[in-house]
Amino acid sequence: MATANCSNVASTPKRVAIIGSGNFASAMSIFIGKNAQSRPEFEDQVNMWVFEEEVNGQKLTDIINTTHENVKYLPGIKLPENIKAVPDLTEACQGANLMIFCLPHQFIVRTCQTMIGHFNSKDAYALSMIKGFHIKEGPAIQLVSEHITEHLHVPCASMMGANLANEIALQKFCETTIGCENPAMGSLFKRLLETEDFRVNVTRDFGTVEMCGALKNIVAVGAGFVDGINGGNNTKACVIRLGLVEMVKFVRHFFPQANSTTFFESCGVADLITTCYGGRNRQVAEAFARAFPNKKLENLESEMLNGQKLQGPLTAHEVYDCLIRDQVLDQFPLFATVHRICISEQSPQDLIDILKSQPSSYGVLDD
Amino acid sequence: MATANCSNVASTPKRVAIIGSGNFASAMSIFIGKNAQSRPEFEDQVNMWVFEEEVNGQKLTDIINTTHENVKYLPGIKLPENIKAVPDLTEACQGANLMIFCLPHQFIVRTCQTMIGHFNSKDAYALSMIKGFHIKEGPAIQLVSEHITEHLHVPCASMMGANLANEIALQKFCETTIGCENPAMGSLFKRLLETEDFRVNVTRDFGTVEMCGALKNIVAVGAGFVDGINGGNNTKACVIRLGLVEMVKFVRHFFPQANSTTFFESCGVADLITTCYGGRNRQVAEAFARAFPNKKLENLESEMLNGQKLQGPLTAHEVYDCLIRDQVLDQFPLFATVHRICISEQSPQDLIDILKSQPSSYGVLDD
Repeated sequence: MATANCSNVASTPKRVAIIGSGNFASAMSIFIGKNAQSRPEFEDQVNMWVFEEEVNGQKLTDIINTTHENVKYLPGIKLPENIKAVPDLTEACQGANLMIFCLPHQFIVRTCQTMIGHFNSKDAYALSMIKGFHIKEGPAIQLVSEHITEHLHVPCASMMGANLANEIALQKFCETTIGCENPAMGSLFKRLLETEDFRVNVTRDFGTVEMCGALKNIVAVGAGFVDGINGGNNTKACVIRLGLVEMVKFVRHFFPQANSTTFFESCGVADLITTCYGGRNRQVAEAFARAFPNKKLENLESEMLNGQKLQGPLTAHEVYDCLIRDQVLDQFPLFATVHRICISEQSPQDLIDILKSQPSSYGVLDD
Repeated sequence: MATANCSNVASTPKRVAIIGSGNFASAMSIFIGKNAQSRPEFEDQVNMWVFEEEVNGQKLTDIINTTHENVKYLPGIKLPENIKAVPDLTEACQGANLMIFCLPHQFIVRTCQTMIGHFNSKDAYALSMIKGFHIKEGPAIQLVSEHITEHLHVPCASMMGANLANEIALQKFCETTIGCENPAMGSLFKRLLETEDFRVNVTRDFGTVEMCGALKNIVAVGAGFVDGINGGNNTKACVIRLGLVEMVKFVRHFFPQANSTTFFESCGVADLITTCYGGRNRQVAEAFARAFPNKKLENLESEMLNGQKLQGPLTAHEVYDCLIRDQVLDQFPLFATVHRICISEQSPQDLIDILKSQPSSYGVLDD
């Protein structure tokens, strides 16, 4: 969690705004809407910022506000009636002091700029569900939550976990992890999100939580490559294992105060597994490897994802640049190779050579 | 690794015997046969003890020795010609001083008794690929490797990893972990097993390696139950995560010298994932949950596995008894519930309640 003016959690009802309306944001709106309505610490109505688009000749916001269904990104699922789709970002966050960020990380800079001066900064808190890093000049990686805090002057927690949106929407039980340094603020977000089917664990180790959420998408791209060359379960397990080892090493390098137990939370090993078996990064990477070298990732992304964005290749690129800058690229052969395959500098088959040649991890994780 | 007379590794060629001939033993015989033939530290011929049975009116050993194919347990795959199927155990291990144990763990007691006095005890070493514990009276769990050492007076290492046999036989790359206290002995087994498609990492943390191999089958049964009630990827990830946490806790309880990094080896998280997605424990458990309460696990085992044995339910039972004896059952809700479902005391659906009610794992793994 990034630090800012983080005082006691106020007892007046909080106004909640969901910034984003994709597949995952829509699934989260089910829990948020339900809890906002039933729990006194939140105002009943929840605005959800929807990037306006036309679906079958109608505005998406109008469809959501009349049918209570996000027909484009979460079709077939009813959203609570107190979720109000708002096409204008400044209006959506007007007066809000609990802001839930849930959008592709490439949009965060402009989104924050637009919001300044429109939300209620008194006792305001933010929660980021964004997977990725904010890369800027300087020696360190900036977490998306830190970027939000820097620009909005609001403390920001993060939430990551094994949470495929479509399964959540079908009320299949799952867990998630909130990383938040301030326990009262963490409890408030837990109250906003937890339901019988969605268990929220809170940890103070915010950096590990957020980094895991970003890095696992790189590993999932690698797992998809293995699927695309018919590598099998054993080989895929090698990729996931080596990916986990590199995740741990990466987090420790950039966030030395990381707590090892956080990797055993939902945001760690559980999210990694789910993403490597069921997520869209894996799916598109598999198609890319099957078609290699005839299709580009960007084209497959638009062909296959119906407007959703891929995070893995972008994160792989950002991580690659960081590793070069810090002169530690050779310690992260999997991350590096995934990036090079994404940009067609290497072939999916080359990933197997990396698995064969990597040093034994034994001892690598010892401090 | 259990300790015994473990002196230097001799330079005269070692005679290798494979004790067992099931699906996994047959897959391993491909590597062992190849390396025995090409590397000077091993005798060329490798005996493989085959529990004799008739297949289409012919003896299985005759089929293997003429067609070089284990038509029952690894059909369609050629074994090296220097692998000789031997139906008599005492003859199979005659003069051997490298013994590879690869059979269901319920057979280990009688197998060891039969072998006494028949192998070459000079500079002899054993390697156990057996998944399970040997439970006897007393305060501690006995590893299968320790049982072998106690009865044969031979140091015994163990090997576990993300190694589905059919994929290995198709030469899909994978890794494994050998746990062995004596580095020279560990290197010798690495030389016997490692090929370009099968990477062997050696660690001295033998107890963690062997315990992981046994415990992961309990988790895989739980994962299969979730599949059987259509739980989805998120819920299955909860089971795997909680299973991993209980594996770590269990190993630390019974083997306090465990090294945490071993869980990041192939024998740890990689084997767990592979088994929970691709193994036979998962498969039969799924069928059990779908048919619940109309079929017993034993019946499904014989219907579905063509003579192979399930390890998960047996290990769950053994672990359950240990946890009761040590009065720590309440710290292992997943392991306990899996066992109770296996014996139909609870229903597969009850597993979801365990996931919902378990305490946050945060802090649980801190020492």
